[in-house]
Amino acid sequence: MTQTQTPNPVINPKLIVPFMNAVRQVFKTMAGVETTVQKPFIKPHPGASYDVCGIIGFSGDITGTVSVSFSDSAAQKLVEAFAGAPLDRSSPDFADAIGELANMIAGSAKQHLGGLASISVPSVVIGKGYTISNMTNSQCLVIPCGSPFGEFAVEVSIKQKTV
Amino acid sequence: MTQTQTPNPVINPKLIVPFMNAVRQVFKTMAGVETTVQKPFIKPHPGASYDVCGIIGFSGDITGTVSVSFSDSAAQKLVEAFAGAPLDRSSPDFADAIGELANMIAGSAKQHLGGLASISVPSVVIGKGYTISNMTNSQCLVIPCGSPFGEFAVEVSIKQKTV
Repeated sequence: MTQTQTPNPVINPKLIVPFMNAVRQVFKTMAGVETTVQKPFIKPHPGASYDVCGIIGFSGDITGTVSVSFSDSAAQKLVEAFAGAPLDRSSPDFADAIGELANMIAGSAKQHLGGLASISVPSVVIGKGYTISNMTNSQCLVIPCGSPFGEFAVEVSIKQKTV
Repeated sequence: MTQTQTPNPVINPKLIVPFMNAVRQVFKTMAGVETTVQKPFIKPHPGASYDVCGIIGFSGDITGTVSVSFSDSAAQKLVEAFAGAPLDRSSPDFADAIGELANMIAGSAKQHLGGLASISVPSVVIGKGYTISNMTNSQCLVIPCGSPFGEFAVEVSIKQKTV
């Protein structure tokens, strides 16, 4: 491996709080859905938490990835609340809606993270039993979230560039 | 959707050639494997080509995502050639190796794309039958690739910022 080997540095809590706030704000504003966030924990092993997952990459002063993942049923109901109509799970519009939600959460959190960072367009993974890994030189923190439509999770695996 | 609706602009071929060169160069230099690239085609529907996939996000003057995806068997043999030893498919080192290959291909291509772009750390998806979608406002071009260990593909879904 040519990457810098700095295994598992602890994620600064200041990098997590903006995502906890962004989740509540985005779902309330954009989908009219009240969500709750629970205490984050360190992901014990790389793997997707759920079936439908929007992934955003960070680069610049903040590097890493953030994903928002849902069970199938939570994804369908939250997308319906967001889009104003039910969308077929296999349609491009469904993936777009998941990507857009992930994009808004990452974009909203980014404003409060400090530093100059840019975020990539989202990739949306839909399936069963797949795993998602990031480079293992930074920890992944899972923020478990609740909604009236089911549980979901925001997984944050980012670090701030140290000067 | 709040995104700008500019559906399916055609990808500039100048954005594709650097990836075709990068694939050959990275596998030859880093794994001692001769690869071939075939004529790219427009992906007819979002979906993963194979089972093991490394995804890199671009931001800045180039925005979008690039993924490198392999069948299980091609991934295992190419990773063995790259790492110098066989790695278990479920180990973090295996995902790291796939991510690192994707990172080197994207990084190498980026140098020849022009403009100021940054790339995110890779996300690696491992599973069966999942689909990966990007935001549908840019086309996805598939570059089919061949190797002695099996086929793989580089999927490029990026666009250059127009000033």
